[in-house]
Amino acid sequence: MPYQPPVRDYAFLLRDVLELERYAGLPAFADASIDLIDQVLEEAGKFAGEVLAPLNHVGDQEGCTWRPDFTVTTPTGFKDAYAKLVEGGWPALGADPAYGGQGLPHVVSVAFSEMSSAANMAFSMYPGLTHGAYSAIHVGGTQEQKDLYLPKLASFEWGGTMNLTEPQCGTDLGLLRTKAVPQGDGTYKISGQKIWISSGEHDLTPNIVHLVLARIEGAPAGTRGISLFIVPKFIPDADGKPGVRNSVKCLGLEEKMGIHGNATCVIAHEESTGWLIGEENRGLALMFVMMNEARLGVGVQGIAQAGAAYQAAAEFAKDRLQGRSLTGPKNPDGPADPIIVHPDVRRMLMDMRAIVEGGRCFLSWTSLHGDLAEASLDEAVRQKGRDYMALMTPVLKGFLTDRGFQVCSDAMQVHGGSGFTEHFPVSQYLRDCRIALIYEGTNGVQALDLVGRKLAADGGRGVMGFFAELDAFVAANDADEAMKPFTEGLAKAKGELQEATMWLMQNGLANPDNAGAASTDYLHLFGLTALAYMWAMMAKAAQAKIAAGSHDPLYAEKLAVGRYYVARVLPETSSRLAKLKTGADLLMALPADAF
Amino acid sequence: MPYQPPVRDYAFLLRDVLELERYAGLPAFADASIDLIDQVLEEAGKFAGEVLAPLNHVGDQEGCTWRPDFTVTTPTGFKDAYAKLVEGGWPALGADPAYGGQGLPHVVSVAFSEMSSAANMAFSMYPGLTHGAYSAIHVGGTQEQKDLYLPKLASFEWGGTMNLTEPQCGTDLGLLRTKAVPQGDGTYKISGQKIWISSGEHDLTPNIVHLVLARIEGAPAGTRGISLFIVPKFIPDADGKPGVRNSVKCLGLEEKMGIHGNATCVIAHEESTGWLIGEENRGLALMFVMMNEARLGVGVQGIAQAGAAYQAAAEFAKDRLQGRSLTGPKNPDGPADPIIVHPDVRRMLMDMRAIVEGGRCFLSWTSLHGDLAEASLDEAVRQKGRDYMALMTPVLKGFLTDRGFQVCSDAMQVHGGSGFTEHFPVSQYLRDCRIALIYEGTNGVQALDLVGRKLAADGGRGVMGFFAELDAFVAANDADEAMKPFTEGLAKAKGELQEATMWLMQNGLANPDNAGAASTDYLHLFGLTALAYMWAMMAKAAQAKIAAGSHDPLYAEKLAVGRYYVARVLPETSSRLAKLKTGADLLMALPADAF
Repeated sequence: MPYQPPVRDYAFLLRDVLELERYAGLPAFADASIDLIDQVLEEAGKFAGEVLAPLNHVGDQEGCTWRPDFTVTTPTGFKDAYAKLVEGGWPALGADPAYGGQGLPHVVSVAFSEMSSAANMAFSMYPGLTHGAYSAIHVGGTQEQKDLYLPKLASFEWGGTMNLTEPQCGTDLGLLRTKAVPQGDGTYKISGQKIWISSGEHDLTPNIVHLVLARIEGAPAGTRGISLFIVPKFIPDADGKPGVRNSVKCLGLEEKMGIHGNATCVIAHEESTGWLIGEENRGLALMFVMMNEARLGVGVQGIAQAGAAYQAAAEFAKDRLQGRSLTGPKNPDGPADPIIVHPDVRRMLMDMRAIVEGGRCFLSWTSLHGDLAEASLDEAVRQKGRDYMALMTPVLKGFLTDRGFQVCSDAMQVHGGSGFTEHFPVSQYLRDCRIALIYEGTNGVQALDLVGRKLAADGGRGVMGFFAELDAFVAANDADEAMKPFTEGLAKAKGELQEATMWLMQNGLANPDNAGAASTDYLHLFGLTALAYMWAMMAKAAQAKIAAGSHDPLYAEKLAVGRYYVARVLPETSSRLAKLKTGADLLMALPADAF
Repeated sequence: MPYQPPVRDYAFLLRDVLELERYAGLPAFADASIDLIDQVLEEAGKFAGEVLAPLNHVGDQEGCTWRPDFTVTTPTGFKDAYAKLVEGGWPALGADPAYGGQGLPHVVSVAFSEMSSAANMAFSMYPGLTHGAYSAIHVGGTQEQKDLYLPKLASFEWGGTMNLTEPQCGTDLGLLRTKAVPQGDGTYKISGQKIWISSGEHDLTPNIVHLVLARIEGAPAGTRGISLFIVPKFIPDADGKPGVRNSVKCLGLEEKMGIHGNATCVIAHEESTGWLIGEENRGLALMFVMMNEARLGVGVQGIAQAGAAYQAAAEFAKDRLQGRSLTGPKNPDGPADPIIVHPDVRRMLMDMRAIVEGGRCFLSWTSLHGDLAEASLDEAVRQKGRDYMALMTPVLKGFLTDRGFQVCSDAMQVHGGSGFTEHFPVSQYLRDCRIALIYEGTNGVQALDLVGRKLAADGGRGVMGFFAELDAFVAANDADEAMKPFTEGLAKAKGELQEATMWLMQNGLANPDNAGAASTDYLHLFGLTALAYMWAMMAKAAQAKIAAGSHDPLYAEKLAVGRYYVARVLPETSSRLAKLKTGADLLMALPADAF
């Protein structure tokens, strides 16, 4: 069975859990009735399932091809699919109507991102990075730059990239060496080598707009001397059409464990012509517009691959006949029972659902806060939206990709030996998913961002607001017997997360290494608690539907998976707390040369 | 830096922790002085590091090649390396001197297995499977069969395989269809298709001895009608040389995520000529001789890949300059600090060491019990050895491969983006290691073997003996202040493991699905507790050396890593216990068609 987009699950999230109708009065939601959103996601699901998914395996097998004339060819079928993507207007879902976008809420475009990434992660990175370039220009560009580039990027007629990494500088952008020399005419000559540039060169679009970090001659060393430039592959002519070929070229492709269908390029700028975007030496701030969007997108990729892998595993577990149930045959007329009867197989499938469906809710809930941060008429709501977006972004990226990879690995395990062969899709899901733990800031960097920056921001307003929200939910539902497992589990996890937060405040100041040593366990404790809240909200919505007479089995399933999450996933919070409270001393006990 | 075999670590384990000198009086150990063992492992390390490791990447890149004449070519260099392996007598380390082996204890040959598997897992599977075939014939063959095959297999002049799996039958061997028709002359005609046959066809040896499970015509259905046959690729002639080509052939190779250098074959038996080994319909018991050996070998592979991945990560973390320490520059004259200064990088490296060094000790300790099961003059010791080998085999296989894969993934994470490219070795370690969680019985099958068979065997004698041993260790060392972290951690973990064992006994009978639902968490709780014991033993040995005046930094390192294990890895036991005690009801709540 091919990939089945989770259209029904999103309808549950958007209608029953997040109750998008509540926001119908806001201008940004005015054109996005829930019925329209349903239709959009239905069509999005068809596009992902019917156009993108069939190209996933061929993309993995063929990969991209670099030629000595510095061109790159994408795998068979990618070009046609990209044309259909542009034709269908899919990438423009969330873009500004002023530049040809449809202006739908992020919470809708995230759903499309999940479906397209699950169907074909390598393919979806081409429009994904284009959207990042769109956002940076939308936020930081001059009106002229916006008018020139945004319509082409919003429609995805042109591609976009982020040119950040250099051989000596990945996480630590202060080490960046690429130079920009002002030409006195408003342009700069950019020189330097960039590596690991996703979608850096390809045959999908007539032009590619590189957003390039470089240091203007004479700028300060470190991160305060970095500027951001627009470097188009073809310099737009007077009509805004691709004109003169710029001296930016792809020197080769990386050979990678996964995402073979995406061109990961070594890019040389040999006095390429660039235009400053935003202020001089303020490039990092603008780059983080792209980066934060990309981090949320990577969290989506983790859940997307996990969701697709879950589907493959569930299908295999229902089909594969092997052994008998421990409690007596369940398929007595067949040679054996389907392996889904085995509790340990069921454990893996339930773990997968608990993470995939909980993570999907977490992504949607956070994206909605992102929408409200822009669209709400109430400044308190906007502020909360901004706080949550900032606080949750590292959690979404780090927690959901760590867990998503584990889900992919469990999905392979359900397949047994079949899963290790490339005849089944799960090896590719596992290999593709693995990069999500690394790029756009490794998960360790996310954890450090969370404990080092996000927790303390604005006097801890974001995390305190989150704790208050959890307390309020528990208080409001504590009397409801049916909600007991959820409110009790959530209250316990929240108590542990709060204890960990206090520990960090007390011990992180005394020795910053304590914060670093605790960071990954803290991020997981946070993610586990957030998913406990998501499952509690989903349970409440499902119970309300059942109480109102619905017999849709989805609601009973949500309750069952939610209870499983609380009983069998959430207990990990205690050991995370115990570990992180041991501090840095034991962890840093050995000298570096002992390794 | 190329792979560095852990020769020094094994000297510590064999001399200081396991104190092999204690057994010098036993005949089996008489020719294996500790000095000789040191020398053997030193040379083994050289062979693994200098001959096998350089072929690891090429094996991954080239893979094996199948040709329409049903031959298979191994990657460049494998044939030469194999000739050197045979010439050096490495595979014969543990084999019976009566058939040309060196008769060294298993605890020594396991060390060689780790080194060769870490250096080149795909290559090492060729001799690994040959050793399995050797063992099955050694245990179950007639004297004639032994005389004919064992010298060729002990020397690895010929290869060996296990032909078990068929398309419809993997874990559930009762579904096996391959037929054996007696010819009245002591031979059988074997017909059927086997899949996933590791080392099933290759160019390394002039003959390959397949051990094939098949059902003799008219035999009972299910597992009680399965017999084991010797099916040589070339039927030995009167001089024992490869004679007539048998009608067993390789129809193709699997395309896999890893171990590309090992030929994973589809094997067709088209009335191939076979000889029964052991009794009719008793093939499974004999096959389990191979299987149990193979399971321990797979546990070795998990730790081997993890150990090699750790080395690569440690080297990268010391070389890669990126960012500054949270507590001030540690490399002030350089552009940045090496990333090993970051606590979260250190956390991953310490996690890796805790598992690799603890797991290595667990493998050695169990293998020594395997030696004592055969060699001790005391029946109580032999019985304990047999009990422990049976009990620990699923734990070694399941726990060490699950954890080994996590180590490989963490090693990739330390590498950042570099790790995802194939220019660094860690992608291969991760991809190769992944099969170890699956083959020779998935880790879920190991967990079920542990809770369903091994715990209850002989009235629970094995596990009760293990608990008593842990109690005795704690009691003997409780007064030693320096041992407190270890004895306290071990006592707590053992208490939780015992509680889990009691829970299983009480609830597994009432509903077998409770045992299945608990099995994987129980296996990990068991493994974590076993490693707590290993670290306690290593700490005790290290402290004794330090007290005796040694300044070898290895001893201080063992204490530091051991304390880290207790503080930051072991706390997971509590959440494993909490999860497993929730039982099967929540886990089995949904009907199969809800997935």
